[in-house]
Amino acid sequence: MTYLGKNSNNIRIVMINTSHPGNIGAAARVMKNMGLTRLYLVNPKQFPNYEATAMASGADDLLSQAKVCTSFEEALEGCHLVLGTTARERKIQHEFIGAREAGELSVDESASHEVALVFGRERTGLTNDEIGLCHKLINIPTNPDYSSLNVASAVQIVTYEVMMAFQALTIDDHQKVQSSEVEAEVEKFASSENMERFYEHLQETLIDIDFLRVKQSPQLMPKLRHIYNRVRLKQEEVNILRGILNKTQRLKK
Amino acid sequence: MTYLGKNSNNIRIVMINTSHPGNIGAAARVMKNMGLTRLYLVNPKQFPNYEATAMASGADDLLSQAKVCTSFEEALEGCHLVLGTTARERKIQHEFIGAREAGELSVDESASHEVALVFGRERTGLTNDEIGLCHKLINIPTNPDYSSLNVASAVQIVTYEVMMAFQALTIDDHQKVQSSEVEAEVEKFASSENMERFYEHLQETLIDIDFLRVKQSPQLMPKLRHIYNRVRLKQEEVNILRGILNKTQRLKK
Repeated sequence: MTYLGKNSNNIRIVMINTSHPGNIGAAARVMKNMGLTRLYLVNPKQFPNYEATAMASGADDLLSQAKVCTSFEEALEGCHLVLGTTARERKIQHEFIGAREAGELSVDESASHEVALVFGRERTGLTNDEIGLCHKLINIPTNPDYSSLNVASAVQIVTYEVMMAFQALTIDDHQKVQSSEVEAEVEKFASSENMERFYEHLQETLIDIDFLRVKQSPQLMPKLRHIYNRVRLKQEEVNILRGILNKTQRLKK
Repeated sequence: MTYLGKNSNNIRIVMINTSHPGNIGAAARVMKNMGLTRLYLVNPKQFPNYEATAMASGADDLLSQAKVCTSFEEALEGCHLVLGTTARERKIQHEFIGAREAGELSVDESASHEVALVFGRERTGLTNDEIGLCHKLINIPTNPDYSSLNVASAVQIVTYEVMMAFQALTIDDHQKVQSSEVEAEVEKFASSENMERFYEHLQETLIDIDFLRVKQSPQLMPKLRHIYNRVRLKQEEVNILRGILNKTQRLKK
């Protein structure tokens, strides 16, 4: 029997700046097949659109409930784990995981908080800034001579692995994941919003102490983001770091 | 690194009586992405067709090489293992396996003979006679309330599992390549000694700005160490962080 994870509502699909509305519809169909329902669209080129509805083929309820956002940050509101998909060739210093591991991780963490699975533009994928907001990147294996995976295919593969991971959880395992112990452990990670506030505070402080001039060093903040996103800070740790920033700022006043 | 199975030529995709040429094109694209090339079409409704070519999006070589057959038996010529996909609700006395097991089995058997992965009609799937020619049936898990998987999506999931199985087979073969890559990667990480210098510098700075009094907060440095050890800093990143510390210290002088 197919088991739909009861925490599947905690897993959202985020599509950024999608050009072809047909891809949005195809992704919605695929999501519904795999038991997911929450679709976030960041600045889609055309939406709503008849091609999206046609391709959704009965999953148009997901389209009408889709949340259209004007920024990636808005689409990540409330998420504690953000996984982005990218073409594997990119030279990025970031932790890569396979689609299978991404499915398992998403299902594990969905027991206690919200998870975003992020899919970039058809041609160009995710920008470096967007990657900077992802905790890990998902690498889908493809033929190196023909690696341009359709975005709905990428959604298909990742959501299939989510469904497989939900299925692998027996009812007993499921209860275990939900046990207060695990919940308490995972709950401690800082939310995306709090990480953004930390980065704003960090940038402000670096400007205050004349370490950063944004126009002259556009790469500094992305590099710093990359450090702290990789580590996946707990809220308590963010509080300590912001305490240091407050103290530093006061030196200048 | 993605490795294409050297026996991938022994695995063919058979699509029976497909109605929509777009689905044939989408399936070709998906196959090529996943490193498979041999497509057999049993009495397709419309083929060749511009919609198939458009959806193939660069995988039109698979379409032009596709073998169009007038019977299922013809498409199975030379095959020693035949796996069919069906909707899971069907009451059939047949051995069912998951897509993952189907991928593993196909890859195992492709070492010695030819394998057919069979996909039925969009609406009605495979007939009982066709099922009778399959050794096993592949069951793809879906949402029971919305289980009508697009045929190209089914091809995507099964061929993804084939590629995953080829990859798992060849981890040994590629350990040499990967180990030298990993070595080069590890070189960039900061050494333990340099991490110690960074922690000393951090502690000194926190004392300078009156954030830390070691005796009163013995837990602060261990907590900060825990953040930066977890992230595994690169030397370049240590340099940036120490630059910030230097600038901060100068504020007090």
